[in-house]
Parts: sequence; structure tokens; C-alpha cells
Amino acid sequence: MHDEYRDRIRLPLLRERVTSAAAAAGWIQDGMTIGMSGFTRAGDAKVVPLALAERARHEHLKITLMTGASLGNDVDKTLTEAGVLARRIPFQSDPVLRAAINRGEVMYVDQHLSETVEMLRTRQIAPIDIAIIEAIAITDTGAIVPTTSVGNSATFAILADKVIVEINLTQSLELEGLHDIFIPKHRPQREPIPIMTPSDRVGTMAIEIPPEKIVAIVITEKLDSSSTILPPDAETAAIAAHLVDFFREEVRLGRLTESLLPMQAGIGTIANAVMTGFIDSPFKHLTMYSEVLQDSTFALFDAGKLDFASGSSITLSSQKSKEVFSDIVRYKDRLVLRPQEVSNHPEVIRRLGILAINTALEADIYGNVNSTHVLGTHMMNGIGGSGDFARNAYLAVFATKSIAKGGKISSIVPMVSHVDHTEHDVDIIVTEVGLADLRGLAPRERAQVIIDHCVSEPYRKMLHDYVAEANQRGGHTPHVLEKALSWHVRYHDTGSMLLPKENAEISA
Amino acid sequence: MHDEYRDRIRLPLLRERVTSAAAAAGWIQDGMTIGMSGFTRAGDAKVVPLALAERARHEHLKITLMTGASLGNDVDKTLTEAGVLARRIPFQSDPVLRAAINRGEVMYVDQHLSETVEMLRTRQIAPIDIAIIEAIAITDTGAIVPTTSVGNSATFAILADKVIVEINLTQSLELEGLHDIFIPKHRPQREPIPIMTPSDRVGTMAIEIPPEKIVAIVITEKLDSSSTILPPDAETAAIAAHLVDFFREEVRLGRLTESLLPMQAGIGTIANAVMTGFIDSPFKHLTMYSEVLQDSTFALFDAGKLDFASGSSITLSSQKSKEVFSDIVRYKDRLVLRPQEVSNHPEVIRRLGILAINTALEADIYGNVNSTHVLGTHMMNGIGGSGDFARNAYLAVFATKSIAKGGKISSIVPMVSHVDHTEHDVDIIVTEVGLADLRGLAPRERAQVIIDHCVSEPYRKMLHDYVAEANQRGGHTPHVLEKALSWHVRYHDTGSMLLPKENAEISA
Repeated sequence: MHDEYRDRIRLPLLRERVTSAAAAAGWIQDGMTIGMSGFTRAGDAKVVPLALAERARHEHLKITLMTGASLGNDVDKTLTEAGVLARRIPFQSDPVLRAAINRGEVMYVDQHLSETVEMLRTRQIAPIDIAIIEAIAITDTGAIVPTTSVGNSATFAILADKVIVEINLTQSLELEGLHDIFIPKHRPQREPIPIMTPSDRVGTMAIEIPPEKIVAIVITEKLDSSSTILPPDAETAAIAAHLVDFFREEVRLGRLTESLLPMQAGIGTIANAVMTGFIDSPFKHLTMYSEVLQDSTFALFDAGKLDFASGSSITLSSQKSKEVFSDIVRYKDRLVLRPQEVSNHPEVIRRLGILAINTALEADIYGNVNSTHVLGTHMMNGIGGSGDFARNAYLAVFATKSIAKGGKISSIVPMVSHVDHTEHDVDIIVTEVGLADLRGLAPRERAQVIIDHCVSEPYRKMLHDYVAEANQRGGHTPHVLEKALSWHVRYHDTGSMLLPKENAEISA
Repeated sequence: MHDEYRDRIRLPLLRERVTSAAAAAGWIQDGMTIGMSGFTRAGDAKVVPLALAERARHEHLKITLMTGASLGNDVDKTLTEAGVLARRIPFQSDPVLRAAINRGEVMYVDQHLSETVEMLRTRQIAPIDIAIIEAIAITDTGAIVPTTSVGNSATFAILADKVIVEINLTQSLELEGLHDIFIPKHRPQREPIPIMTPSDRVGTMAIEIPPEKIVAIVITEKLDSSSTILPPDAETAAIAAHLVDFFREEVRLGRLTESLLPMQAGIGTIANAVMTGFIDSPFKHLTMYSEVLQDSTFALFDAGKLDFASGSSITLSSQKSKEVFSDIVRYKDRLVLRPQEVSNHPEVIRRLGILAINTALEADIYGNVNSTHVLGTHMMNGIGGSGDFARNAYLAVFATKSIAKGGKISSIVPMVSHVDHTEHDVDIIVTEVGLADLRGLAPRERAQVIIDHCVSEPYRKMLHDYVAEANQRGGHTPHVLEKALSWHVRYHDTGSMLLPKENAEISA
């Protein structure tokens, strides 16, 4: 029975667990907590959740869904539309789900990506009933070999009562050996994570669980969704150039060597563009210790700039995906995929001395960063791993274009409308205008550097005017409290952060 | 020469470096960066800085002063009044210095206490020219044995060009052996910090530097300033009782054992009172992995509740200081003092699973915490170690009395006026009214729990009204942006956060 899958399901007794997505979804009951594979659209469970949505047409079915990070294949969208999601943890990036979150219909718990499984392991949040994990294979001991992400899959499978595996035949068996599954011990028995360099392997190649926990196996051939990043443009290229210049100066000053230190880049267009900018840099033998590995990682490999990359997932554009996965052997010995609590672990990040490059939605004149909330209220995606990295990094860089919406929004504001990263954790702010080096500066100094280096007119003058008025009030971090959020209020009311006069000039 | 100090200065050649405070201060030049011992009023250099202030009466003298944390003996006050401080890093708690910071006269860089020496080691901030370290003795190899704090002293002494030692004869030689000096290696050679339990000793008993760097030794008999904490009152006792109840329930649920996990308590009256509350708790064999050890630590030892305490300093009230230091041998094998980058290290905090209890100046309905800025602008003390602990802890608790200034200020507000700890890092908020358990909750849920558990009337109704209006606007984290800071503005304008109607009722 199902012997055609003997290379994919190597423990014979498990072959009889092969079933349909609908039958597998039948294990899921109303009120359960489901832990699902998937990190930045990579390696997500693809068919069982959609079968679950289908079931919800006919019966009341609400679940808490935990994943590694964001999902592809419209899984979050479909589950939201089917009304299945009561609670969603710890990250998402789907427009339909986002809208439901912002209407208060789905309770979204936006967590540091390294922390979800710590809270599960210590039973501080509701336990996982069923884990659904995409795999390339199940080994002859019943261990699960993940596909293009590890995310939280290992701990979900270990902690769940029951496990459903989606074997994805489109994912090459050559991926086996790419993963390094290390699970910290329970406290107080916990020991150091023995990673001293990004290429250190410290765990197993597959997720080891008792095979009898695997209650269903579904065969799929659905591809990962491609990444949605945009190619570099003039602004992102300028941001990259400012950062390369900055690091060149750090090397000149003897603070860093030409191989820098291991780099992390957040998900998305700007971080990918910044990393792409390192192709034309003087640096050599770079390494990455990051969460998602994007197109730029492989472009840096191909350019001979990058020696090794550690991540928790590989998320590529359609074209790059074909190139990389059709010839993964070429890259395999320079790659490792880890559980996100290891890729994002404070201990390892601090030890290795990560150069962390993440994206800001907005930053303020004192260096506080908002990564998540539009106008302070509406969730965009989530904090993801940016906090894990920024807090513990050697250097925390936040990048953003200086304006948005054709100039109606300034990304640098008097006070951010929501804080994800405090002034204490932000070393560098960079826009296409320039770079502000905030290290060792007091707030009043930071304000001058940020305004002069990162902002262009008319917002530069507006911010200097704000600071002048705030300084009259005094304080370590001067503000005019009743005007601190006035730019956001003005945008909400008028569709622009510009004062009516400047707005007219811009429009003219 | 100076042979009377042979037990205190055991390397004979150094005895000829004994000199006056004024002569020692003569090494300090205008524009230098000085690294000084001292952490939470303990073990601070006491006479050289005052001699420096004296010199500044007659000459232009501006320095950058770095310490472990806050100083006693009016050192910050005297240096401020003398106009010596151009820049101050990373923590202070002196009213005169605070006022100068808030006037913009002293540039204050408010840092996570674990991070200052990392930035120094990697030369990301200006290097230390001279270190001034209080010691009980200098060993026969020239190593410095600190007094009641380690703080940043070890790294200051290691990185400085020159070192001045203040030998404090009032501190017993019995303190020798209390300290554990571990210095992380430079990256990329850095290895794990091998601390697996609070009592692990991983370093040396003294700060080892080339003895020729010690250019001057000054003999003093000035005492540490006593701590300024107030005794527990009805509100702090209620806060402690809520927390003990909470932990009792965690034990009942099997999440923690009766010895809990290593505890950290921030500096100050509330955290000290909370720890004192554990004397009358059912817990046993407690341990602390904290930064400052206060009166409550020794009360817990005496009550047989506490097995071991690791810290970076010992700061006691006048009475407790006499009791403890006159008989330190009684406690010595249950104590260790570490460099603050080790006591506050993310790696160790995450590994041990610290229960972190810190004080909030104010918190908002979504769980963001302001630890530092009065009305968002005026610095109180600094973030200290609260961020090191809260971000990486097993559980992050923030405690505050629900009101201040006789009810004119609510400590729970719609939006904090400054964020030091984001919603992502705050698990528990506790006031004398009750305790809000925020784990696994979305923002809209957090708001209800915080308002109902931590706030009493009339602020409870005012906050519910705010939430109702905010929910009309929608969003994951609903706010009425133009009113979000209105409580602070009203306090600034009228002297009360209460609406005129409620204010009249309260006053009536």
C-alpha cells in the first residue's frame, strides 16, 4: 500500500497513514490549537488547512493557528474567509487576514519570533493539539525532514498530541541534510547553544518524534508561493550605497574586518535590496546569520561575496526559485536551516555579533522605530524577528524610504505612533537621503543627526521647527506633547502629513 | 614607604603610587573619557571625582563620565555643579544631574546596562582614557579586588590607558572572594558564558591588569551611601501579595516548582517591597540572578527562603548595611558579584529563565511601559537593566502603584508618553488594585484585562470610555490619536489627569 512513496515515507508502517487532505483535516476539532509549518511563505502546510476551510462551510469551526511566520498559498486568506481563525500567532502578512485583525475579528498575538515556542514549552500559552508539518520525507525512524523552512515546526511536532505530515513531492530529496534541528532543554537543565560561527551544526537533520504520533500523511505537489519583493529601485539602491559606505568606514577605522560580522536582513524589498548592494562592495568572505534567506543571499553566493548563510527559511522570487532549487546541490554545503528560536536566539545573536538590518515603517527624531502599526493603530504584518535581532545585535540598522505616498507621508516623524524598537536598541537609521549614526548620542543630538541626514524638505524644516518648539519646553527628550502625534492626525484627517501650505506647493 | 598598607597593596612596587586624591585627579585632562566604578550607589570612587570637581573651580575641565550605574556620595551632584560633566553614560539617579540633563546641559546616554562595555570593547563609542576603581585591595600580582560592586569596573580597567585605584579601608578584606570577574572574548572568538545556575563561578576573584597601568592609589575611608528605598507600605504590600498569589497559581498549574526560577528585582522601593513579600510565601529554596542586591535579599536569606543570590552590587539601607557588612562571612558563600554585562547578559537571562520584576513609571492599556520619562520628556533615572531582563526573561513583570500625586496622576494611561518596554516584552502588569496576566492576549484583550485588574475609579471608567471611542476607529491596537496623550497634556496644563468634573469630586 502506497509503496510508490517508499523513498518519501521510509518507515513502512507509516505508509498506511497516507490519506486525503479532507480526511487528515478531520482530526481537527473546534477550539483546538494548531501548530503549522511555514515561515515567510516557505515550507507551509498547503492542503490540509484548505480542506479545513472547506469543512468550515458546513460546521462551526474556530481554531487558534500558530505558525513559524507568514504563509503563502492564500492559506491565511482562505482560513480567514472561512471564519476559522479565532486567534493567530505569531506573524502574518496577508491582506485579508490583516483586515480581519484590524476589525478586531481575529485576535492576533504579534510576538518576537524566537519566543513562541519558549512560551509553549513552559505552557504559558495554550498547548498545541495538532501539528501540521510539510516535509520532503519521513525517515526510517519516523523523523520528519522539513522542506524550505524549519520555523517552529520541530517544537510544534514535539509538543503536539498528534502530527499530520504533508509530503511535498515537488521538493527535491536533495534538501535532506540542509536542516539542523536543535531544541533547547527545559530549564533549569538548559545548557549553552554551542553555535560559535554561522556554519556550526549542532542538532539533527530531521525532527525526531515518536512515529505513532503521526496520525495522517497527505501527499501534495503544490509549490511554495514566490516571494513578493520588488526589485531594487533608485531609493533602495541609495540606501544600500549609504550602508556600504558606512561599513567601509567602520573597516577603515579598524572596528570591523573586510569580512564584517555575520549579517541578518529582515524580510522584504528594502532589506533584500540592501543585501544586493553588497555585491558591489569591497567586502569579502561575508556570512549571514539570518531568519529568511532571500534572492540576495544567492546573488551574493554567485558573486563570490558570501561564504555561508544560516537561516530558518528560503523564500525566493519565481525566477530565482527555479535557479536555486533546480541545482540546490551547488549551494547546499554553504547553507543551514534552523528552528527560528535558534536562528533568532538572543544568546547566539549577541555571541556572534550580528549586523542586523531591518525595515522601519516609520522612525522618530529620537530614534524610536515603528515596524508594525500604520498610524499607530492598524497592523501591517508584525514585529517578526526584528526585535530578536535589534536588541541583541552588534549593530542595529533600520532602513526606510524617507517618504511614502508620493510625499504625503514622512517616514521620519516627531514621535512614532507605535514603538516596536526603542531608542535604546537603534544604532543606525538610513534612508535614501543619508545615514544617521546614533551610537553614543543623547536624544537632542540624535534629533539633529536624524533630521539632517535622513530627511529632505519640506519635512526637514518642519521637523527642525518642531524641535525648536520642543526645546523651549525642555527635557531630556523634548516634545510638544499635544503636537507629537499631530502629523499622523493630519494625515488621517487630510490625507497628508504636510501642512496645507506645503501641500499646496507640492501639488502645484 | 606606605608599608602600613601591605595587606591592602600586596604588590610592593605599587605602594609608592599612593598619593593624594588631588594628585591622582591631576592625571585627568579636559576632554577625557573617564570610566568609574559604582553601581547603584555601591562601590563608587569617592574622593578622586570630588578632587576633580575642586580642580574645575580653577580651570576649564569637561569630561565624559561612564560608570556602572548610579553613584552615591553626591558625586554626580558635585561634578554637575562644578560643570565637569559634558556627557554621562549609562545611568544616573541624582536630582541635580537630572535637572541638568533635562535642561540639555549634560548629554546623557541612557543605555541598557549590559551594553556599555560591549560598545567600548568594539570601539563604537569613545575609548576610556582613565579608569577610577574603588577596591578593597590590590593583589600581589597587581589585580584589583573591587568593593561592594563590580559594575563595569573590570572592563573599564582593562580598556583604560591608566588606572587610578581608591583603596577603601572601611570595606572589610572579608569581601575578597565575593567577586567573579568574567570578561567575554572579542568576536568572532567569543564562546558561551558557562553559567548554568546562579551560583556558578566562571571567572577570577579580581580584575587582572598589567600593574604598570596603575598610576595612582588613593586611600579612603568614606562609606558607601545608604540606599534611599522606603519601607513597604499598604500599596507595595498589596502588589507583593498579588504577585505571590500569581506565582502560587503558576506552581499549582505545574508551570513552576516551589523554588520558582531565579528572580531579578529592579532597584527601588517597589521591587524591594515585592521581594520582601516573598518572606511570607509558600516558596522555598529561591535563588536570585539580579543586578542590585537590596535589603530584601538579606531578609530572604535570614528567613531561610533564599539559597543563593548573584548580583553586580550590594546596596543596603544604613541599618541593614551595618548588619550585613559586620558579618559578611555569614552570607559570603551564598553570594557572588559579577560584571554587569554578565549579571544582565541576554544569554544567561534567557538560559536560566529569569523571573524579572521591574518598576514602571507608567504603563498603557496595551501593555507598553515607560520606565524613564516623566510626561514623555523629562528623564527620571534611566532604563537601567530593566530592558536586559524584560526582553530575555521567562516572565517580565512590571509593577507600579495605580495612582500618583494623590490621584492626580494615573499610572495606567491610554498611551504611554515614552516607551522603554514594548507590549511584546511585558507579560504581567501589577498594581495594588490587582494583576493583569497579558500572556497570549491580543491588544484589545490586554486593554480589558489591564483596565479591569489594575485600575480603580474614576480612571477605570475614563479608560473604558477611551477604549470604546478608540474601538469605533478600528485597528489591531485601537487609539484615538488626537486624544492618546491628552491625559499627559491635561496634567501639564491643569496639574491633574482627571477631567475637571472628576477632579472637583475628588477635591470635594
